[in-house]
Amino acid sequence: MALAAPALPFTFVVHVLGIALVVLVLVWNIHFRGGLAWESTNKSLIFNIHPVLMLIGLIIIGGEAITSYKALPLKKEVKKLIHLVLHAIAIALGIIGIYCAFKFHNESGIANLYSLHSWLGIGVIVLYCIQWLYGFVTFFFPGGSQSVRQGSLPWHVLFGIIVYVLAVGTATLGFLEKLTFLENSGLTKYGSEAMLVNCTAVITVLFGAFVVLSVLSQGSAGDDDYTAI
Amino acid sequence: MALAAPALPFTFVVHVLGIALVVLVLVWNIHFRGGLAWESTNKSLIFNIHPVLMLIGLIIIGGEAITSYKALPLKKEVKKLIHLVLHAIAIALGIIGIYCAFKFHNESGIANLYSLHSWLGIGVIVLYCIQWLYGFVTFFFPGGSQSVRQGSLPWHVLFGIIVYVLAVGTATLGFLEKLTFLENSGLTKYGSEAMLVNCTAVITVLFGAFVVLSVLSQGSAGDDDYTAI
Repeated sequence: MALAAPALPFTFVVHVLGIALVVLVLVWNIHFRGGLAWESTNKSLIFNIHPVLMLIGLIIIGGEAITSYKALPLKKEVKKLIHLVLHAIAIALGIIGIYCAFKFHNESGIANLYSLHSWLGIGVIVLYCIQWLYGFVTFFFPGGSQSVRQGSLPWHVLFGIIVYVLAVGTATLGFLEKLTFLENSGLTKYGSEAMLVNCTAVITVLFGAFVVLSVLSQGSAGDDDYTAI
Repeated sequence: MALAAPALPFTFVVHVLGIALVVLVLVWNIHFRGGLAWESTNKSLIFNIHPVLMLIGLIIIGGEAITSYKALPLKKEVKKLIHLVLHAIAIALGIIGIYCAFKFHNESGIANLYSLHSWLGIGVIVLYCIQWLYGFVTFFFPGGSQSVRQGSLPWHVLFGIIVYVLAVGTATLGFLEKLTFLENSGLTKYGSEAMLVNCTAVITVLFGAFVVLSVLSQGSAGDDDYTAI
């Protein structure tokens, strides 16, 4: 199902939307929500770390890790290293981000793991880690045989896309859940903060779509590392 | 990115999960939520039509329409007809389902179109209709030239998958939104209804994943109509 379109323009869109998302999620949590804090009597500031790290980590850096094979004019081995290091950073930020959600809940007396967002979120981080470990062992160190790599690659790409799309979906659930809580506490439904959060979520979906499009499109000549293992 | 796996087993999983989803969404809305009604003084009964028709329409019948090319041992022209008719039924049920959400809002004095679920939902139904119309005109009547069909097919498949995944994501947003409203009104967070709704949402995600897997896998010999236009 490879598309007869060059991937590079799609990767440019990924970069631009990624920068926009970083700005939007920081404006939301610092300007509208009061800022970020690891320790605070205002427990909401602890929570605010959660959307910032999940979006910058799993979604944006994770998305850049996926597109790096198509976006960068470098040798295969260098791109592979960038791919796995960016994904490792994404996972690390994701785990810290998830820890902050639990920390906020525990210090505020809020129940854990009752919502669909939390269920899918735990699923995503577990699958993301499994995917990373399988990729590391098979394609990097110690590395599988040529036939194992060839047999594994389409499944690695497909499973990676599925986990990534699930991460994007879980992020949109998080935006909706947090905004619904805020609106139930009196936030105006058509106000500037609500519009900002909804627009951030829509741009997150677009970002994810362009990441997938870049994977399915053609790399530069002799540069398509999804077929050259 | 076609997978070296037969599609048929994936389509069986789609059927089984689809039947499970029909049962779950009906149990939720009839047993737990009090039933369905087009006109009622209990406006919640009007709303209840919405999740039932959206899930059975866009998600389940839409998913069966997508997998029909891989699931049915019939001639290409027959499968094409089944594909477009099932999608037309999915769209019709989707439009009635969306109408019921507006009807419930309007008769209950609730604001329209402020949530991410509603924004993405309107986007999905519009894109779904565009996709159907383009497919009808290009592949059915009057039908494009051979080169137009060949050039269009990968984009038709890709755009179809993107719209379908967006529909599944929007459905999960709807489950989370409705459950959050109910929990804010006193529903137990770890109670049987909450578990039922979350499980229905998780199975919806699995259903969507198996629909996509069936599209990307191999049809029976000489039967893969995603390459034979």
